[in-house]
Amino acid sequence: MTGSARWAWQHLNYRFASPDLLDHALTHKSRAARNNERLEFLGDAVLGCAVADALYHQEQTADEGTLSRMRALLVRRETLAELATAMSLGEQLRLGSGELQSGGHRRSSILADALEALIGAVFVDGGFAEAHALVQRIYAAKLADLPPPESLKDAKTLLQEKLQAESVATPEYAVASETGPEHRRRFVVECRIAEHNLLTRGKGVSRRRAEQAAAAAALQALDGGGPGAP
Amino acid sequence: MTGSARWAWQHLNYRFASPDLLDHALTHKSRAARNNERLEFLGDAVLGCAVADALYHQEQTADEGTLSRMRALLVRRETLAELATAMSLGEQLRLGSGELQSGGHRRSSILADALEALIGAVFVDGGFAEAHALVQRIYAAKLADLPPPESLKDAKTLLQEKLQAESVATPEYAVASETGPEHRRRFVVECRIAEHNLLTRGKGVSRRRAEQAAAAAALQALDGGGPGAP
Repeated sequence: MTGSARWAWQHLNYRFASPDLLDHALTHKSRAARNNERLEFLGDAVLGCAVADALYHQEQTADEGTLSRMRALLVRRETLAELATAMSLGEQLRLGSGELQSGGHRRSSILADALEALIGAVFVDGGFAEAHALVQRIYAAKLADLPPPESLKDAKTLLQEKLQAESVATPEYAVASETGPEHRRRFVVECRIAEHNLLTRGKGVSRRRAEQAAAAAALQALDGGGPGAP
Repeated sequence: MTGSARWAWQHLNYRFASPDLLDHALTHKSRAARNNERLEFLGDAVLGCAVADALYHQEQTADEGTLSRMRALLVRRETLAELATAMSLGEQLRLGSGELQSGGHRRSSILADALEALIGAVFVDGGFAEAHALVQRIYAAKLADLPPPESLKDAKTLLQEKLQAESVATPEYAVASETGPEHRRRFVVECRIAEHNLLTRGKGVSRRRAEQAAAAAALQALDGGGPGAP
């Protein structure tokens, strides 16, 4: 048994029929042309399906909006990187020399992609049932400790729901400014709620994030008596 | 065999062990609280996984960017609605009276959602292998006739690649104007390529679409001698 096969047995509780697939999943594009990018494409879809299935059966009273938000939380890069770190995946990665020197085995995007590629590799190697079982094992603790549905809603959605309950028109968002070069853009968005005579601002690296920040400020203003309140 | 079960057998080539699941998948939220939204959530993920698997094995030389674009084309609303229409899915839908009167059984979003819900229902009823086989049957013609990878790239990507090949800096996009109420926004975006002394404009209902239009205009200007060329 090779080192990586032993690692997979210990941490994934899975034994590859084709150990070649395991090496393939652990190979970053900085190392070789035959890398884990295609397996990552596949694994991303397999993970999404396995998590959707787990949530569908576990959260029987959750509506599809809640299910979608729970899934987004479980499959996002930060969560995947955290799971990958817990299983010491970084030490198994096959990186190019540049990535190796700059600490690529600790980079969250590389870790998250490799974990998806591993799920894809198990799917190719053992079929959907094996990949599904792997996802259930990896995510057991996360699935057992899901945050309350309400906490998963983003600020824009919460603000929208709050205003709808008051029969107030939807807030208006507008870009106030957009500065910086293409790769380091900075957005300022204004959120206006005419009926409340309220105007808040939010900043962010994307229009979407700036809108969320502006909505969060509006929520705070409406709930807490304004950003300047104690 | 009920009418819908007969339809499913004829058009999906699938016989439900639990016909109740089939009715569930065909019930729009305008009709009943127990509707197809949760199954649609699940079916969307199952479809994504099955299509990813089909593409992964069929398109062995495609990189993950091409695979992603092919999948996006296959699972987008328009494609799903076209497939649903071909199998007369609209006639099987269980709609509320309002949707029924306003022609909801022909609406592409309702048709696409219901087809996803059906895939989810087959997954719950028969497991992944059955759902995968269903997707392969429904998509057989589409998978056999995929457009060339090059044609799948959007205008921004093509422009970016063209400029990279010329070692020219990336184009700069900026919102020139944003008008209209929240639900009917109108964006004008400018695309600037300093090295070519080129400035083009694009309009759209979203920032993204306006950027694509501006990029398409830039491509035309660079390839064809300008929008005013013959």
